[in-house]
Amino acid sequence: VSEGPGTVCIVGLGLMGGSLALALRMAERAPDLIVAVSRRADVLEAARSAGAIDLATRNLRAGVADADVIVLATPVRTILRLLPEVGRSARSRALVMDLGSSKTQICEAMESLPAGLQPVGGHPMCGKEMAGFAAADGALFRERAFALCPLARTAPEALDAATALARSVGARPLVVDPVLHDRAVAGISHLPYVAAAALVNCVTSSGDPLAWSLASSGFRDTSRLAASDVDMMLDILLTNREAVVDWLERYAGQLDVLRSALGSGDEAGLRELLVAAQRGRAGLST
Amino acid sequence: VSEGPGTVCIVGLGLMGGSLALALRMAERAPDLIVAVSRRADVLEAARSAGAIDLATRNLRAGVADADVIVLATPVRTILRLLPEVGRSARSRALVMDLGSSKTQICEAMESLPAGLQPVGGHPMCGKEMAGFAAADGALFRERAFALCPLARTAPEALDAATALARSVGARPLVVDPVLHDRAVAGISHLPYVAAAALVNCVTSSGDPLAWSLASSGFRDTSRLAASDVDMMLDILLTNREAVVDWLERYAGQLDVLRSALGSGDEAGLRELLVAAQRGRAGLST
Repeated sequence: VSEGPGTVCIVGLGLMGGSLALALRMAERAPDLIVAVSRRADVLEAARSAGAIDLATRNLRAGVADADVIVLATPVRTILRLLPEVGRSARSRALVMDLGSSKTQICEAMESLPAGLQPVGGHPMCGKEMAGFAAADGALFRERAFALCPLARTAPEALDAATALARSVGARPLVVDPVLHDRAVAGISHLPYVAAAALVNCVTSSGDPLAWSLASSGFRDTSRLAASDVDMMLDILLTNREAVVDWLERYAGQLDVLRSALGSGDEAGLRELLVAAQRGRAGLST
Repeated sequence: VSEGPGTVCIVGLGLMGGSLALALRMAERAPDLIVAVSRRADVLEAARSAGAIDLATRNLRAGVADADVIVLATPVRTILRLLPEVGRSARSRALVMDLGSSKTQICEAMESLPAGLQPVGGHPMCGKEMAGFAAADGALFRERAFALCPLARTAPEALDAATALARSVGARPLVVDPVLHDRAVAGISHLPYVAAAALVNCVTSSGDPLAWSLASSGFRDTSRLAASDVDMMLDILLTNREAVVDWLERYAGQLDVLRSALGSGDEAGLRELLVAAQRGRAGLST
């Protein structure tokens, strides 16, 4: 019989932290106690009313002090800022995780945690365009990949505990190197966000009112990510800058190839590119 | 009490034509008879079994001969190829419509129809990434804009009939100039398709297997249009080439601005661009 995760402290009760609290609460292998830290008293109160958490505090030090597992669920640069204080306040052997979308800088910062602590970077591959606890959903992690980045110093048992936590909320844990993770998500998550933002800005700046009134499900889906929380995305982009710029350059190249084929009326070439895209997309569903 | 549309002949039983047949069948103001023309005997049989159509034929001339309303629901360049034969076979005063996604070339070709015929270009703003009658859905047009492009020669009663048909399937008819229509949909429909195709080709050509295994709902939505039917999209792009190339150039410009801000670490500038995109996207839902 496997032990539960004991006391879990979640720092940040937005979409991700709030969803984690709800998911852990419903888990078969639920924590004994869920403690939440948030700057916002109203959010803590909402989470307590929803039964998502047991203890609430606006004080980071008080929240993490007794936790067996600490999960930082704030924007990435806030995680980087909070880690030293977590290091000072957490009890020895605590598992320190996060849910940030870029991992290299966070895992680097985790190296500086006191030797007794057990750091594992984390990134569940899921999201919504709505931010905040009001959008939290205990089913958010189900069937989704959950990237885990242990450090060289991380004890095997700590990685096991992180893996068990990911499984307990229905996710598929996937141990990856932080640099490889950041390069991959720059392509399949951060690039699509920037592409969606550019698309919206393109239509807005055209000043064509007819365009908006004819917009339908195709535009809605393609542009959905542009509605993401800007503070969260700004942190992600700025802490994964090189990889995202790299993908943006390759994306511009692919667009250029398509535009050239269309502009010159190269039907065979254009068809080949579109068929390749259709096949590539079909591979995604399998 | 308004009259029904009489005998409606739908040419092409793919997603759009098939959905129109199903929607008209369920309409309060249903046709007396729904005739379908398709090259494919199996599709005609499937539509007849589904109760979507009354009469089936592979012969265009036979199908349109007795129709009060003819709706061409094939890819755009097939519509252009079929129009002369429709002109020779349709009975005088018949309403000739289409469901093609680009309107300028089709409306130009409709000018050459015999004087007695009543042409109205049409474009319902809806779709799915699945093609074919198997994906047809009688609810596809509900609450969606349905662009209508009458010609100067079109009788007011014919436009009224086209408007009534659009309303009868639950759509919101919108009378627009074909050139303005094509410019607008190039931005909110054809550009997003090319952007999605470029995104998939970008990830495929990267050869990063981790990227695919981490892909989640964000990538799925942003790339969805890349799964569209290539024959249909190729016709649309090639018959709306200038407008699409124009939008692609503006899109490249917007991407470049975002990439520069990120690459140079201009946080304030980047935030401004992302906030603008978020606001623009929010306007879409209202």
